[in-house]
Amino acid sequence: MTTIVAVDIGGTHMRAASYSQDDITPIKHKRIRTLASEPGGFERLTGVIEDVWPQGEAVSAIGIGSPGPLDPHTGHLLAPPNNPQWHNFPLAPKISEHFGVKSFLDNDANLAGLAEYRFGAGKGHHHVLYVTVSTGIGSGVIIDDRLLQGYHGLAAEMGHIIVDPNGPPCSCGFNGHLEAYSSGPAIVKYVFGELEAGRKSSMKRDMDLSAREIAEAAHQGDMLAIQAYQRAGEYLGIGVASMLHMFDPSVVIFGGGVSQVGKLLFDSFDSSLKKHVFHPRYLDGLVIAKAQLGDDAGLLGARALAEMKLGL
Amino acid sequence: MTTIVAVDIGGTHMRAASYSQDDITPIKHKRIRTLASEPGGFERLTGVIEDVWPQGEAVSAIGIGSPGPLDPHTGHLLAPPNNPQWHNFPLAPKISEHFGVKSFLDNDANLAGLAEYRFGAGKGHHHVLYVTVSTGIGSGVIIDDRLLQGYHGLAAEMGHIIVDPNGPPCSCGFNGHLEAYSSGPAIVKYVFGELEAGRKSSMKRDMDLSAREIAEAAHQGDMLAIQAYQRAGEYLGIGVASMLHMFDPSVVIFGGGVSQVGKLLFDSFDSSLKKHVFHPRYLDGLVIAKAQLGDDAGLLGARALAEMKLGL
Repeated sequence: MTTIVAVDIGGTHMRAASYSQDDITPIKHKRIRTLASEPGGFERLTGVIEDVWPQGEAVSAIGIGSPGPLDPHTGHLLAPPNNPQWHNFPLAPKISEHFGVKSFLDNDANLAGLAEYRFGAGKGHHHVLYVTVSTGIGSGVIIDDRLLQGYHGLAAEMGHIIVDPNGPPCSCGFNGHLEAYSSGPAIVKYVFGELEAGRKSSMKRDMDLSAREIAEAAHQGDMLAIQAYQRAGEYLGIGVASMLHMFDPSVVIFGGGVSQVGKLLFDSFDSSLKKHVFHPRYLDGLVIAKAQLGDDAGLLGARALAEMKLGL
Repeated sequence: MTTIVAVDIGGTHMRAASYSQDDITPIKHKRIRTLASEPGGFERLTGVIEDVWPQGEAVSAIGIGSPGPLDPHTGHLLAPPNNPQWHNFPLAPKISEHFGVKSFLDNDANLAGLAEYRFGAGKGHHHVLYVTVSTGIGSGVIIDDRLLQGYHGLAAEMGHIIVDPNGPPCSCGFNGHLEAYSSGPAIVKYVFGELEAGRKSSMKRDMDLSAREIAEAAHQGDMLAIQAYQRAGEYLGIGVASMLHMFDPSVVIFGGGVSQVGKLLFDSFDSSLKKHVFHPRYLDGLVIAKAQLGDDAGLLGARALAEMKLGL
């Protein structure tokens, strides 16, 4: 029986789990704090892997998910946010050397997409677009049952497609990216901009607003809050329309915190998508689904990556 | 030895050729007029295929390229422009039945991309973005050595990605598509718009201007003509930047008539691409190339499609 160890390195927590093939429930599972700004990150990582190492079973591979940018072909982290110790860090090769087992790395959005395709809302589909709408916007794409990674391993950065070259600045510094319209911080920024411009609202300029609080204001009927989400949904529909034209998937799966707000975002998304898809055939049988795996997507994706690389 | 018959159905000409595997020079080749508006199209097609049928050789498959929209999975034409007789026409199945040989169909841009990947400017690359800039803008994408087709077979419609939702109308009727900025007719339309607005130029409102004539005016120093191409190149750079973020190819290949103008389009394309790519790593080792196969791309792509489907 094949056994895989999976690791999900998040901003606040590192999780590890060991899995038997064809069983979605881990043999062992452990979660610790990432403490990215403190030294000893590699030791914490090897420690949590040791904690879930199955007794009496040979581990076939270790799959690792991390925020990007990273190079899945070499297994090197390039410049993970909030973790300067791991800039240009050969993570997969070092884990491989430490445990004497093949190790594979890819970014969290790609792996969440792979997990949903293998175990979640994309099961049975061969062409999958997974979109996470959260602090940023990321994506994972499956084409003909294969994960899209690209030449440098930097494919599927849907948050950074240009939806309006004269649009507002993105977190990455460039203008008019989808993330600059439809991510949580973009929604907050839009609300503050409108408040600055004197727009009436139950929300105030001196509040410490989050996308979640704006969603609550919207549910209370605040027009600015409602419109902020409508605008985000509209641009999300524009971005997804372009992605349909390029990838022509059979399912689009939404994950991430901002996508939890439901109709507030997705009513305008739906009408925008219909409005912007240039041929109705793209929508024939197209499934729009919510991610099913929640917090487990990272671990299950890291596991699926290892299985994929082993040819399983 | 495997022998393939390839057919390229164009707006004005139909071409057919027979090929031995691993020989890029056809055994036989024939070109006739398409005469799309006249009846008898299917008979003309079977006739030109018969004309190139190799004597004494078993044909393994027939590959067919045609303008879209079409369904490469079923081999049906959906609504080819200028050819109402072939709307919802089961072209590949009928050719297959007629000749007793497997037949495969895909659109001209996908097949030109596949041809450049196999035999032209993309040889040796595994991740290819082919872009044709002409009356329309089409593309063909190779990911990990496989042609991107999509669930409905409608993938890689790069002319119809949205680069500005408030932009001018595209030939397809929707607004702000790349094709509405950077195709030949878009360049012409922009020039006429500026002339209508009273802009000074050697070109006049009552002229029957084409993209080629605007290029000539630009070479004579006409500022409006120069700027029209610059604008087209700038948006082309924006569109290609988004495609790098999604596909992360190692080569971008340009074909089509408008792309023949060289620096007039590509100086502004290059600076726009550099300006809009959000991480410099996408450009590491990225090759920007001209298509090498010219008019043979369609035939060689149809041949490559058949070989691909046969697993060769």
